[in-house]
Amino acid sequence: MWRDLAAIGDGGAGGYRRFAWTPVDLALRDWFREQAALRGLTYELDRNGNQWAWWGTPAPGAVVTGSHLDSVPGGGAFDGPLGVVSAFLAVDGLRERGVVPARPIAVVNFADEEGARFGVACVGSRLLTGILDPDDARALRDGDGVTLAEAMRAAHADPGTLGRDDQALARIGAFVELHVEQGRGLADLDSPVGVASAIWPHGRWRCTFHGEANHAGTTRLADRHDPMLPFASAVLAARRAAEQAGALATFGKVRVDPNGTNAIPSRVDAWLDGRAPDAATVEAMVGRIAEAAREAGAEHGVRVEVVAESTTPVVEFGHGLRDRIAATLGGVPALPTGAGHDAGILSASVPTAMLFVRNPTGVSHSPAEHAGTEDCVTGVVALTAVLEDLAGGVGW
Amino acid sequence: MWRDLAAIGDGGAGGYRRFAWTPVDLALRDWFREQAALRGLTYELDRNGNQWAWWGTPAPGAVVTGSHLDSVPGGGAFDGPLGVVSAFLAVDGLRERGVVPARPIAVVNFADEEGARFGVACVGSRLLTGILDPDDARALRDGDGVTLAEAMRAAHADPGTLGRDDQALARIGAFVELHVEQGRGLADLDSPVGVASAIWPHGRWRCTFHGEANHAGTTRLADRHDPMLPFASAVLAARRAAEQAGALATFGKVRVDPNGTNAIPSRVDAWLDGRAPDAATVEAMVGRIAEAAREAGAEHGVRVEVVAESTTPVVEFGHGLRDRIAATLGGVPALPTGAGHDAGILSASVPTAMLFVRNPTGVSHSPAEHAGTEDCVTGVVALTAVLEDLAGGVGW
Repeated sequence: MWRDLAAIGDGGAGGYRRFAWTPVDLALRDWFREQAALRGLTYELDRNGNQWAWWGTPAPGAVVTGSHLDSVPGGGAFDGPLGVVSAFLAVDGLRERGVVPARPIAVVNFADEEGARFGVACVGSRLLTGILDPDDARALRDGDGVTLAEAMRAAHADPGTLGRDDQALARIGAFVELHVEQGRGLADLDSPVGVASAIWPHGRWRCTFHGEANHAGTTRLADRHDPMLPFASAVLAARRAAEQAGALATFGKVRVDPNGTNAIPSRVDAWLDGRAPDAATVEAMVGRIAEAAREAGAEHGVRVEVVAESTTPVVEFGHGLRDRIAATLGGVPALPTGAGHDAGILSASVPTAMLFVRNPTGVSHSPAEHAGTEDCVTGVVALTAVLEDLAGGVGW
Repeated sequence: MWRDLAAIGDGGAGGYRRFAWTPVDLALRDWFREQAALRGLTYELDRNGNQWAWWGTPAPGAVVTGSHLDSVPGGGAFDGPLGVVSAFLAVDGLRERGVVPARPIAVVNFADEEGARFGVACVGSRLLTGILDPDDARALRDGDGVTLAEAMRAAHADPGTLGRDDQALARIGAFVELHVEQGRGLADLDSPVGVASAIWPHGRWRCTFHGEANHAGTTRLADRHDPMLPFASAVLAARRAAEQAGALATFGKVRVDPNGTNAIPSRVDAWLDGRAPDAATVEAMVGRIAEAAREAGAEHGVRVEVVAESTTPVVEFGHGLRDRIAATLGGVPALPTGAGHDAGILSASVPTAMLFVRNPTGVSHSPAEHAGTEDCVTGVVALTAVLEDLAGGVGW
């Protein structure tokens, strides 16, 4: 199962490139449907492009588990797929042991979790829960100017049905997402599995530096409006501001126009990713970075715009479900994460928890992302136990 | 003639994108061939992809004029095409006045002057004069990994014949390239036309920052090897070093891998364009920038490589031809430029000169690049007079 999946969208040493609604993503979605069919699970595509595989009749109070199959550019094999594969294996494990769940169990693959193509993360779960407006979603554009609506239609999916889906939401009694840890928390604690306590608030800001294109070989320094210079200042300011705030700030994506060796750019767009334990810290940090960018821009006659593309408030996972899971697993550590997840989006609407599987190096969003086979098995065993407990029917 | 040409590869407000051996370039080359045919000039494609239109039988001692038709990304309408169009109009002017030149006159369109696609400028003239090794040229790759050889074959051109062409070179008695000025020298001197005194030495250096991809939301600052940070330091160091040296340094082209919003990049490639009045200054300046980049890299555990992709020594245009042209034109100013040209490459092999046409704002490599109609006409009149003088047969 893992091997079939591993082959899809694999760029070798360059890592995975599994962008939403691309042919690679469609191959991943076919894989999901096949896995459901192999197990005789009822396949369902919801109104927002999320895939479901039901064991038992879809009904309110179901125990739902899963994650996503898409990736960042140059991503690893585990972020997302580990949760979906573990979910199918947990169903297999319960069946092998002859467990007959009192509540229906569903495996889910949320659409476009990484937001690598259209800039907004967790599009599938944001639409489902009504956090993202369907018109805004349909109008999102990728780097080539293709809208999400166009991309969905090209993939034979209907963008017309997007939007909050109360019926689908009402069926989720609890959602448990298993995910490879994206830091070294469990490695430092010497524990193969843990539960999430919270997700840091985070956001993406698009910083646009409006300069003036000119010839790199003939334009006097004093005559230049080079947007690369205030961008560079912003990159260094972001690091300083993050250090001071005990937070994280990253410029990972840049677009330069026209991007010619001998041309001073007319414009640089750069995306700032900011995260901290609380929202006030994120806001203050991004404010300081924006101020530094504007000051450097003013020095070079470059106008600087900073626009929030997405912001996500802090998520504190409910203690009830988390404590119950920790007890089922005989006491596992609880730890926060800086990474956003569909579980974080769903937690505002339904009882939600996350299981993390140890990542020895903490590296993630990279081909070097890894989890040991033994730890992955421990993760599946833990998820199986959690599903058995939750689907057993006792109230929670 | 100008209008037909202006429509090709026009991106509107985004400027021209006329990359070598693309369909747009082939349309420009068709235009050149048509212009030759319309005038009954003998069309010739040389071994290195350069196009020639001969008035008279190709023979040693010919007077050659022209420029290039390709552009940088987001380029203007004048850089290159003005020289080719003016060349054809000068031939028209001579014929209208019944001039019968003693020497053959040729109009030339040099292939891939800007180097926007394959990273090396003046490929057509460098190959013709033997400065660029044909195997090195064939192996050049564009941003999509396509080699120059593959691109030429796709355009039904033969990359097998590339290389120094003594026969074609021997025919050039003198080469005069008319070009829009790329600074404000003539505007400041209040003169519509001038001659080039020298081309500053210049070069392109590829700076590669080898970091480690990781998740932007979960990787502690101390655990990062973020290549964006030393790149930013290098950008600011380049500006400082250029100011100190009285030179020019520009980072205009950047490639970020994987270029995802929530991923610390694994690698940043950035191209440094450096120019100064003399080679020693360029070298010292680039050395200082590379040192600053390496120091910043060491701080973040990022390995920095700086490799020269192309360097061009200073070009001092011969006084004989330049003085003769200035005399023909009744005394016009001589001025240096920081921009490379095919004329600079040819000057090492044959008598070469350049005419500049005033650019009111000095803006170049940008859609805002401009020359007034009256000044363009003055340029054509000047080029016509120069061709008449040089092709008259008196030794020079």
